[in-house]
Amino acid sequence: MKRILLFAAALSLSLAALAQQALGPGTGLVSPEINPDNSVTFRYHNPKAKVVQVTGDFLPTLPVEIDLGERKIMYNAPGVADLSEGPGGVWTYTSAPLSGELYSYSFLVDGKKVMDPSNVHQNRDIATWTNIFTLSARPGDPGWYYEVHNVPHGNVAHVWYDSPTLSSQRRMTVYTPAGYDSGNQHYPVLYLLHGSGGDEDAWSDLGRTAQIMDNLIAEGKAKPMIVVMPNGVWFNQAAPGAAVNNFQPTMQNSRSQSTQEIEDSFPDVMNYIEKHYRVAKGYANTAVAGLSMGGRQSCMLSLHYPDVFGYVGLFSGVGLVEGNEQAFAKVFAYKPHLYWIGCGKEDGVMVNSKKLKEWCDFQGFPVTLYESEGGHIWRNWRTYLTIFAQELFKDAPQKAQRPIRFSNTTEEFE
Amino acid sequence: MKRILLFAAALSLSLAALAQQALGPGTGLVSPEINPDNSVTFRYHNPKAKVVQVTGDFLPTLPVEIDLGERKIMYNAPGVADLSEGPGGVWTYTSAPLSGELYSYSFLVDGKKVMDPSNVHQNRDIATWTNIFTLSARPGDPGWYYEVHNVPHGNVAHVWYDSPTLSSQRRMTVYTPAGYDSGNQHYPVLYLLHGSGGDEDAWSDLGRTAQIMDNLIAEGKAKPMIVVMPNGVWFNQAAPGAAVNNFQPTMQNSRSQSTQEIEDSFPDVMNYIEKHYRVAKGYANTAVAGLSMGGRQSCMLSLHYPDVFGYVGLFSGVGLVEGNEQAFAKVFAYKPHLYWIGCGKEDGVMVNSKKLKEWCDFQGFPVTLYESEGGHIWRNWRTYLTIFAQELFKDAPQKAQRPIRFSNTTEEFE
Repeated sequence: MKRILLFAAALSLSLAALAQQALGPGTGLVSPEINPDNSVTFRYHNPKAKVVQVTGDFLPTLPVEIDLGERKIMYNAPGVADLSEGPGGVWTYTSAPLSGELYSYSFLVDGKKVMDPSNVHQNRDIATWTNIFTLSARPGDPGWYYEVHNVPHGNVAHVWYDSPTLSSQRRMTVYTPAGYDSGNQHYPVLYLLHGSGGDEDAWSDLGRTAQIMDNLIAEGKAKPMIVVMPNGVWFNQAAPGAAVNNFQPTMQNSRSQSTQEIEDSFPDVMNYIEKHYRVAKGYANTAVAGLSMGGRQSCMLSLHYPDVFGYVGLFSGVGLVEGNEQAFAKVFAYKPHLYWIGCGKEDGVMVNSKKLKEWCDFQGFPVTLYESEGGHIWRNWRTYLTIFAQELFKDAPQKAQRPIRFSNTTEEFE
Repeated sequence: MKRILLFAAALSLSLAALAQQALGPGTGLVSPEINPDNSVTFRYHNPKAKVVQVTGDFLPTLPVEIDLGERKIMYNAPGVADLSEGPGGVWTYTSAPLSGELYSYSFLVDGKKVMDPSNVHQNRDIATWTNIFTLSARPGDPGWYYEVHNVPHGNVAHVWYDSPTLSSQRRMTVYTPAGYDSGNQHYPVLYLLHGSGGDEDAWSDLGRTAQIMDNLIAEGKAKPMIVVMPNGVWFNQAAPGAAVNNFQPTMQNSRSQSTQEIEDSFPDVMNYIEKHYRVAKGYANTAVAGLSMGGRQSCMLSLHYPDVFGYVGLFSGVGLVEGNEQAFAKVFAYKPHLYWIGCGKEDGVMVNSKKLKEWCDFQGFPVTLYESEGGHIWRNWRTYLTIFAQELFKDAPQKAQRPIRFSNTTEEFE
């Protein structure tokens, strides 16, 4: 009993003391709250605000014109909704019922962005932080795969390796599936590349790679595999804050966009992985995929090393046909198990994705084009990974839609 | 040339497309900016705000009285400073020159917390997000150890293990030093425990464990070691969002504060580590330390397993003397290499730290008490780790200040 009393005293002390640093008074609000009909209620306390809004990808997008100087393009900006002020300066908004997804949002208080202080879940996308929440409307919908379920979990490691080609230590993120630690099995490998401005943390954080793989593997929908997420910017060693002199995300310039350095140094990544992990090597056990810039890099890697990657995924990325016709022919001479393109109908690079698909069709190179709704957004990339991962490391190669033939006539695809 | 043109088109497209999701217009401001004299300038754009302030631990603290009902206590709240409005609605504040440290801050816009949109570096402490920056005023000051330098880097893995005692999968964070991957050496292990409300990510994120260890090891000031950071809340599998049904941080109730379940299940943690890592086992190679609740747990673990931990660190944690006199005697009968207490002079638990030190002195049990400035804050815990880690796994046991003797007379220390 004395011990318990001592406890209580120590506890109240430490609670008060902790309040200095961390807990504060708490907001006393639940936000976001997922309602039984899958609508979501947002709450924010601010008696002085004149206008409080929420903006996020759960709202219908707004078409916006962007002036690029020589031309104007349309894009779909995240929607905005007004919260209503209630008693005590608490503002609320309830959405329409939502489908199962991972959603990003933030508040706008008199026009300025404010994070939701009642929601500890935030993600950084390049230089932008937003609050996030997942909603699992029905088992098996996309949101369900991004949530943590009571299934065996794989591990996620942030690993430094030597790149002799780039003369630097570099950091990558490695997912090993549940059971890896306790067994002797060798596993196939998916190399998964981020987009421009991203880093080696992008796929594991915003991309929910570990959750997607854990859930797909537990359901028997994907084979257990290692997923390797390197940093795809050749002049960055690591994510902002994890490397010397790398404090802000940088959009890549055209030099890095060219991916040449990433192509040349990619054997350094694979050598490290094949040396330090139990890897099932070879064409049938090696995949590469990436989003946006990483999609382009995946394409270039497949062209550069046509006998290495039996599975290739281009997520909102484009492959350049012109000048690479011979290289593409070599890629398809190896009969890849899967050459897969995913792109959103509203994505600016859809035109390029379609061109690649059409050219490959014309050549008789079997390529899958998956067209989703929406634009150049993470929601699509998570979906593409979920779909693509299920197709990996199956035994049979993808069937050619028609016999492979190669033509030099490529002008209509420039 | 054609290829380059295609590139430029694809790049501008992808830049515009990316703007949908991530980059936005950018703030166009540098904040925080570290000036040559180590003062720091904060900038924030908001033409509509009436008052913009910055609050953070770089400012002198403000004494505040907290009413706990039966009694009132004083604590030192983070200071607040006003920004001045300049042209175009840009508010600025420049601090006094600062010492080398990792600092946390956020803005208050008309009294409501707002993150600094120009600074991508944020950390979560339990339920509170703040912006952070590190400042290295002089080589070797604390801030220097928390920054990333051009030294060999260790890896950080988020690892799931089975706890038969708690009948669950649980997650921990494991730091392995540079060179671990490429060699055959066996390494000593520091088990490092977080505080109430924290989780297995706290030490690696806000605690800067990897940076501290990388830098100390590179300087030869600490021995290469494995650092294991388990989740110290027995009813949580993992950090918020990493486990099923664990979306918000929870302050522990007295039941978990009792640490009994953590003591009982600790062999599950050690068994996993000793099975899956190259561990130099035994008393002289095994340390435990923790902050606040984790300090208490470290003390209890040392009492529960007196022959296991040759090095013990209590950071702003308290050990309970009463009822544990015999257990403490047993701990010191093994002649621990180091039994170390670190506490801030303004910390509410200093009284307990001093009592433990005095009682141990009285018994002739050699205990080190390191008194720092400040309270129950991360700044101190990072410092304690930096100091404590340098003392670990040296050959000679700490010398007793006087011959060990045991007394049952403990009333003055209740």
